[in-house]
Amino acid sequence: MSLKHTGKQTISLLSPPSVLGYAGVVGKKEGEGPLASVFDLVENDAFFGESSFEKAESRMLKRAMELALDKAGLAPSRVEYAFAGDLLNQCTASAFAVKGFKIPYFGLYGACSTMAEGLALAALTIDGGFADICSAASSSHFCSAERQYRFPLGYGGQRTPTAQWTVTGSGAVILGSDGPGPYITHVTPGRVIDTGITDANNMGAAMAPAACDTLAAHFEDLRTGPDRYDLIVTGDLGSIGASILTDMLRDRGFETAGRYNDCGLMIFDTASQDVHAGGSGCGCSAAVLCGHLLDCIRQGRWDRILFAGTGALMSPTSCQQGCSIPGICCAVSISKDRS
Amino acid sequence: MSLKHTGKQTISLLSPPSVLGYAGVVGKKEGEGPLASVFDLVENDAFFGESSFEKAESRMLKRAMELALDKAGLAPSRVEYAFAGDLLNQCTASAFAVKGFKIPYFGLYGACSTMAEGLALAALTIDGGFADICSAASSSHFCSAERQYRFPLGYGGQRTPTAQWTVTGSGAVILGSDGPGPYITHVTPGRVIDTGITDANNMGAAMAPAACDTLAAHFEDLRTGPDRYDLIVTGDLGSIGASILTDMLRDRGFETAGRYNDCGLMIFDTASQDVHAGGSGCGCSAAVLCGHLLDCIRQGRWDRILFAGTGALMSPTSCQQGCSIPGICCAVSISKDRS
Repeated sequence: MSLKHTGKQTISLLSPPSVLGYAGVVGKKEGEGPLASVFDLVENDAFFGESSFEKAESRMLKRAMELALDKAGLAPSRVEYAFAGDLLNQCTASAFAVKGFKIPYFGLYGACSTMAEGLALAALTIDGGFADICSAASSSHFCSAERQYRFPLGYGGQRTPTAQWTVTGSGAVILGSDGPGPYITHVTPGRVIDTGITDANNMGAAMAPAACDTLAAHFEDLRTGPDRYDLIVTGDLGSIGASILTDMLRDRGFETAGRYNDCGLMIFDTASQDVHAGGSGCGCSAAVLCGHLLDCIRQGRWDRILFAGTGALMSPTSCQQGCSIPGICCAVSISKDRS
Repeated sequence: MSLKHTGKQTISLLSPPSVLGYAGVVGKKEGEGPLASVFDLVENDAFFGESSFEKAESRMLKRAMELALDKAGLAPSRVEYAFAGDLLNQCTASAFAVKGFKIPYFGLYGACSTMAEGLALAALTIDGGFADICSAASSSHFCSAERQYRFPLGYGGQRTPTAQWTVTGSGAVILGSDGPGPYITHVTPGRVIDTGITDANNMGAAMAPAACDTLAAHFEDLRTGPDRYDLIVTGDLGSIGASILTDMLRDRGFETAGRYNDCGLMIFDTASQDVHAGGSGCGCSAAVLCGHLLDCIRQGRWDRILFAGTGALMSPTSCQQGCSIPGICCAVSISKDRS
């Protein structure tokens, strides 16, 4: 049994599951960014050889899962349960990607926090003794998201300075009960927080309060602070949201200076790549995790990070109906060692 | 630790979580059907007092959670993790409903199998030792689904005989580590199965192969057959899908005659209520479970049922792009006793 049952939001895993393999697949623009060298595959064709952007996204997610399995040296049949989700209506990128693997599937929707949500549930499933090997994956595609959430691609509408750029990317992680690490040591699922932001072009501001709520709960539950971690990384608040979060955490007594970053600010060079406030989309934190972040832990640069997926839980319809934008944040501790 | 780690698809829970409370809320048409007397609330106003059908659906789901908590005698703060999902784009009915409760949230997308998926994950979270109390909930609304998936409501398009009628309904279950039952004893998460059906007005045919795959795995994993259960209930295959499933299971050597039914055939009188092949939607199996099915176990009519949520994982976009419809089925054993 776990250390849970304390009524706290954070779950401490007694037998932290290990990352067995991971892979990130991205599009051309992401392949021109600062993390270009860490991705397993950079595809210059926005269609990924398919006939639509939606099919392209599904193909990309499938490719990430295949590569992660290859790197783990595992056949798909070894994975007992797959957790995945994406931004497309009815999460079709994930469902169509997973069907080829014949792995029992749990479909998720956590908006851009989905990679963290999947990682959390996969880790709980293993630590709970229900499986030895699970996978977690997520994706987004600029073209499928843009036309679903905003405007037809050919419209060429101008973007506001607070807008973020949906990453064309996917990441997949294979977790196992036994392995060389990195390990998933703690999970803090998040509450839905809505502070009344209604601007769908400022999702960083809508998500930052949720990130603060989850991170503060995490620190308080573990009676610790930001200095427990070499890096606290949100995905994806962008520059506006990251700045708000830093202030909000400081107000709560948590100083993150020098140890905080955001996946949306890491995947692009915001100064030169015309992405305004930074990257976003389920695939952003998934690709940054499954390339840069896990690489850096394996290479010894960091011992312990807190990966905090952030999501904006609105839809185009809810925005058109004047609803404010609820945010959520799911935090997962990833460590070189099992503690 | 669980009895898992056998490489089987089915998870046997060592300490089966108990249902602590449950509630079903439905609309007018469902309140005129054969199960009218079992629902906790029948709302004749399709708007549920709100200004849009989407807000109405969210209000309905929130009401189901409130009533389930009341019946369990628990404050929302006692629920450690909430699992929920629905059919609306970006699952907004669930996110907006859950935000008022301040419960850490896992958003799900399993199409019409979401209630079973949520029940499964909530049960695993408790049996894994990560929480004492969790909730699972799901919803659908005829009006929000019809205009999102098919046609504007005022269009009045004719429906094909194989079409199903999306239920306006919601169900919520509160599960706990300790309680009087019924208990969740086994979970069989399902694989994504696609046999090439492309008719979005015949989802029963698209989902039946997935139901067969999961049910056959369940019986084989437990070295048992349909006669282990007083009732095997799918949700929602409708009349076409139910008939196909019966034949497919018979071909696999599993005879379900006399002990099989489908939530879509139970919630409406298909002969008189003009619903064609029966009810569908996340809210159909959720409302039937959280009224009729759990009532009958508590009242001693059945000792043990297998609740098999079925979902069609397409989107309007995937159908318009010519993709076939993948199906999924998640099965959950619910028993009067802990065995």
